[in-house]
Amino acid sequence: MKHSDVIFKNAIILTMDDDYNIYNPGAVAVKGDSILAVGKEKKILEEYEASEVLDCQMKILLPGLINAHTHVPMTLLRGLADDLRLDVWLMGYMMPVEREFVSPEFVRLGTKLACAESIRSGVTTFVDMYYYESDIAEATAEAGLRAICSQSILKFPTPDATYYEESLAVAEDFIQTWKGHPLIVPSVAPHAIYTCTDEIWQACTALALKYDIPIHTHISETAGEVENVRKEFGMPVVPYLKKQGIFDAKVIAAHCVHIDEGEMRTFQHAGTGVAHNPSSNLKLASGFANITRMLELKVNVGIGTDGPASNNDLDMIEEIRLASMVAKAASGNPTALPARQTLAMATSMGAKAVHLDHLTGSIVPGKRADIILLGINKIHNSPNFQRDPNGIYSQVIYAAKSTDISHMMVNGQWLMRDSELLTLNEEELIEQAQTYAQKIDKFLIAREQSVLSKLIAIGGAMEEESFEVQAKVHITDPDAIITALDKEEIKITYTRHYHEYDTYFFFDDEDQGRLRYREDEFINESHETEFVRGRLTLVGVSREEQFDQDVMLSRSRYYAPATHSLRFYREYFDPSRELDIEKDRLRFKIQYKGVDFYINIDTLVNPDLGHFLEVKSRTWSREDAERKSRMIAELIEYLGASSEKAETEDYTEIVENFTGNK
Amino acid sequence: MKHSDVIFKNAIILTMDDDYNIYNPGAVAVKGDSILAVGKEKKILEEYEASEVLDCQMKILLPGLINAHTHVPMTLLRGLADDLRLDVWLMGYMMPVEREFVSPEFVRLGTKLACAESIRSGVTTFVDMYYYESDIAEATAEAGLRAICSQSILKFPTPDATYYEESLAVAEDFIQTWKGHPLIVPSVAPHAIYTCTDEIWQACTALALKYDIPIHTHISETAGEVENVRKEFGMPVVPYLKKQGIFDAKVIAAHCVHIDEGEMRTFQHAGTGVAHNPSSNLKLASGFANITRMLELKVNVGIGTDGPASNNDLDMIEEIRLASMVAKAASGNPTALPARQTLAMATSMGAKAVHLDHLTGSIVPGKRADIILLGINKIHNSPNFQRDPNGIYSQVIYAAKSTDISHMMVNGQWLMRDSELLTLNEEELIEQAQTYAQKIDKFLIAREQSVLSKLIAIGGAMEEESFEVQAKVHITDPDAIITALDKEEIKITYTRHYHEYDTYFFFDDEDQGRLRYREDEFINESHETEFVRGRLTLVGVSREEQFDQDVMLSRSRYYAPATHSLRFYREYFDPSRELDIEKDRLRFKIQYKGVDFYINIDTLVNPDLGHFLEVKSRTWSREDAERKSRMIAELIEYLGASSEKAETEDYTEIVENFTGNK
Repeated sequence: MKHSDVIFKNAIILTMDDDYNIYNPGAVAVKGDSILAVGKEKKILEEYEASEVLDCQMKILLPGLINAHTHVPMTLLRGLADDLRLDVWLMGYMMPVEREFVSPEFVRLGTKLACAESIRSGVTTFVDMYYYESDIAEATAEAGLRAICSQSILKFPTPDATYYEESLAVAEDFIQTWKGHPLIVPSVAPHAIYTCTDEIWQACTALALKYDIPIHTHISETAGEVENVRKEFGMPVVPYLKKQGIFDAKVIAAHCVHIDEGEMRTFQHAGTGVAHNPSSNLKLASGFANITRMLELKVNVGIGTDGPASNNDLDMIEEIRLASMVAKAASGNPTALPARQTLAMATSMGAKAVHLDHLTGSIVPGKRADIILLGINKIHNSPNFQRDPNGIYSQVIYAAKSTDISHMMVNGQWLMRDSELLTLNEEELIEQAQTYAQKIDKFLIAREQSVLSKLIAIGGAMEEESFEVQAKVHITDPDAIITALDKEEIKITYTRHYHEYDTYFFFDDEDQGRLRYREDEFINESHETEFVRGRLTLVGVSREEQFDQDVMLSRSRYYAPATHSLRFYREYFDPSRELDIEKDRLRFKIQYKGVDFYINIDTLVNPDLGHFLEVKSRTWSREDAERKSRMIAELIEYLGASSEKAETEDYTEIVENFTGNK
Repeated sequence: MKHSDVIFKNAIILTMDDDYNIYNPGAVAVKGDSILAVGKEKKILEEYEASEVLDCQMKILLPGLINAHTHVPMTLLRGLADDLRLDVWLMGYMMPVEREFVSPEFVRLGTKLACAESIRSGVTTFVDMYYYESDIAEATAEAGLRAICSQSILKFPTPDATYYEESLAVAEDFIQTWKGHPLIVPSVAPHAIYTCTDEIWQACTALALKYDIPIHTHISETAGEVENVRKEFGMPVVPYLKKQGIFDAKVIAAHCVHIDEGEMRTFQHAGTGVAHNPSSNLKLASGFANITRMLELKVNVGIGTDGPASNNDLDMIEEIRLASMVAKAASGNPTALPARQTLAMATSMGAKAVHLDHLTGSIVPGKRADIILLGINKIHNSPNFQRDPNGIYSQVIYAAKSTDISHMMVNGQWLMRDSELLTLNEEELIEQAQTYAQKIDKFLIAREQSVLSKLIAIGGAMEEESFEVQAKVHITDPDAIITALDKEEIKITYTRHYHEYDTYFFFDDEDQGRLRYREDEFINESHETEFVRGRLTLVGVSREEQFDQDVMLSRSRYYAPATHSLRFYREYFDPSRELDIEKDRLRFKIQYKGVDFYINIDTLVNPDLGHFLEVKSRTWSREDAERKSRMIAELIEYLGASSEKAETEDYTEIVENFTGNK
């Protein structure tokens, strides 16, 4: 009799080996960190003895599941913001909160929460991408799970680096420290094509080749990403990255929702693995990855949960089922991704996809002992049919729940027995997580009390000069004003012609001010549109003072370049009401008696309310404001416009008085 | 203080009432079968006392979920056959097994299994459609659940009726017996447009109106169904059913994957409820129902699991999540079906969809006490954010598991407490289910040992006369034979001209015979194709005997009209090899010396192997076979063909010898 440490007996063993051997009843002998033998129970029990023999009555024994793409510390952001578009969710919520809260302590706690949840859902190996990855690696190793830990590199400042060269240095240090660890494979994660530069791709590839470690990245998650890359570089994402050389390394490509057949072939030739994330792709409406075709082309595809902030869990049992179901619907073929193949994606093929198939993914002698037991004695998985040999895979894929997983061993170490976690204290973790949630709630609630804070949170809001002095006068003959600008006291510094589309957001709390989203079309001298610029301006509503002749003094305002779409801002700021105004504007910067003023000759097109002359100036000084108010009144007369037709109202008010909507 | 029976206190209450009131901490007072009061905990505890006060710390209290469409007894067929096309699954497996096994005992056991699983997944009300519905009602009432039980009516024989008038009588009797029961609403279920006649639709509508009960049916589940109806009646399914009058009654329409906007409007006007079944529609690749649009058009949409044979479970928590996620992906809009709206579909709106909103679907005083508690203290649902009032709905929809449901009360009666079932014995049920599974396994294994049994299982295989005598001769001049048919000893009974497309299925076990799928195109005298008929023939391979001059005596054969597609038969019979043969055939039925014979003048088109004369006769008698063999040899000579060119082989063998493939 040969000695082993643990024997699992009386199990239904799905080996997920190359021949899909099933042993029922079967047994597995484990010694140290590895699988010593697997086969029919009778044979194993005749050949091996063990310190511990576990009876697996009514349980399926299978290789631990591989979560091929996730961001584990985001457990701490689970349920923070849902049912939003990717950009609002990411740039409006995730990134501002991450900038504020992500720290070594944060990622350690988030990782431990994720490890507890992963163990309960049968995941023995996960592939992570986040910040402070060495802390994640440490927390994961303490919990006893296997992981590929990929240090994120972005061209932007990140929670753990102020610029990307720093990130790369952190990554190399991390790789050197963890290379060769029995559980952790360090790796580098250039985040995505829209957050990386050519230098980043090349430096990451060099690191990956130097240390023989995987590159983990996001590829073609949304149609928009692909469209942008096509527009900018004239090719889809994969060929572009191929030019940067990354496929010389071992790549793990997450999402791949929008790749074409040529790109799939590149993956096949390069041995690139795909991490398919069905929950995330559905929930964020990214689309349906063509997994059926990838598998036909012999690409190794694994399954990932993505981060728990977009899923919202790490339940691989659910993820596998979804992968199978979605592939059927997306291909219109109910025989697509049958149960056995889908389970392979989460085990043996998944291991190949993440370049760990020499260690894990099947119950084969010599591989590490990464083993789970799943009970099939529950009401939701009864009865058990024997006729179809694939029926047992169906039970795992279509009826099992993660809560049916009772035991887990990773690298020969027990992590869960009879549904009790052995390396983590869940109650303690939940309590600590709740403390973080309260802090994050407080931060976001404070932010959301003010439109200004929300504007600042998405970056780039700048305060303009404290005061704006302006007067607005109805005119009937714009050409007369233009002619008057030639008068001797006036010197024109520059002239511009715009077509302006304004959308104003109003809020229930009027003190929040109004937020104006403006698209300016520049019209050149040949009356062609030259280019479009977007600006976002937060305007205080109330007037500071009204001077003589209806010259108004307004409070300060904030503005930001509008880098996102109107739709983004609408969803992010969630206004209670909106108003659209379209106008044609001739804008002159002039000097009148040596003082700078802006003169706008506006024609309101929608609604059609005729012509206006606006004279404006900005200043930091209250005293200067008064002086300029007098000069504006004078200037209006000088231009031949009647100050009797002066408006004390903003365009929004003029329009709303006209339409009767307020 | 007013008295109540049970008070739930310290709960996070999602009332799902018209204003979506949330009370946290909240309390509910229950008296008898109904909700007496709901509100802030402090207020309820000041006004009410109770025999029992339950502390719901860290639990969400919400209305019990409504499973809007299912076939509960099919728990007993869960996992029997997966990853198959709808027709193969239904007609190859489900229907034959149902014909053999479905009985009152079967449906009672299946129902109890389903009730246990439903209670564990938070379902307090389900809408069923099956056979022996009165037994289902009884088992459901015993388990304490609320249900709409719909007796199926089909034009075909069913397990509980040999013809549809009998079904209708059973249904009326069932309705009379159960009408007014506190838990059960009896109903009638004309199965679907492809299984019902006009008379059935009209009779069901009359029943529904007479007794004021709902009609439950399948509508537009697959694109094929709609296409067939359009072809036959020139309109889609809903207008056709409208003509039959069914929308005068309260209709529950399951699936509705392929309905257009006009059909949705019909539903809205008629108050028809839709039961959306995302798992089933994905798994069977039926398509993506346009739920977003239905909701925009104010149609009441509920969510159903469909039967556990096509899902493969009754987990409504998973079904709700899937509904939300799939709607986002299908509409390309991640804000579609936000969490709160999706939960409404499973509760308050679901109740409207199934016409039970006067009784259940929200926590509102006066409604029946159908209440569940869902714990949010688990690792997979931590932490809990408070900022966004919709966050609590997100926790239910995106992170909760059915195993988080710990308590259930239906109609004021406890069915589960601390995850213990109070009205059902799961172990016993699982054991009994297993006994059935073994019987079904045995039945199917026996069936699959023989191609003939599989042919019989899908219905309609008929045995032909025991013997076929035939001879086949190469000829070079078909016209000469046709001319010879005018000779005096021959009387032509009829003539036909076909173009024949044969596909032969071969099996590893040669004794199984060969299965021939034949499409005959009839060619009329103007050389136009008149119509196509499909036939399926199981041919024995070996020859009984070879007579003089190569006249062959073959063993008997079975044939069936081929009502399904070649693709169906291919998947169902799973042949090891196939062969295609295409030929032109002039077929004559003649009398030669007063005895009937068939004469075929064949031209093999694909592969191109020239002309053959076949002379055939069938008989039940061995002695007669010998006599006819001699006459065939004589007849061949009489027609001027040389028996020296006689073939001892079938067309399959001739072709395979030619192509070298065998």
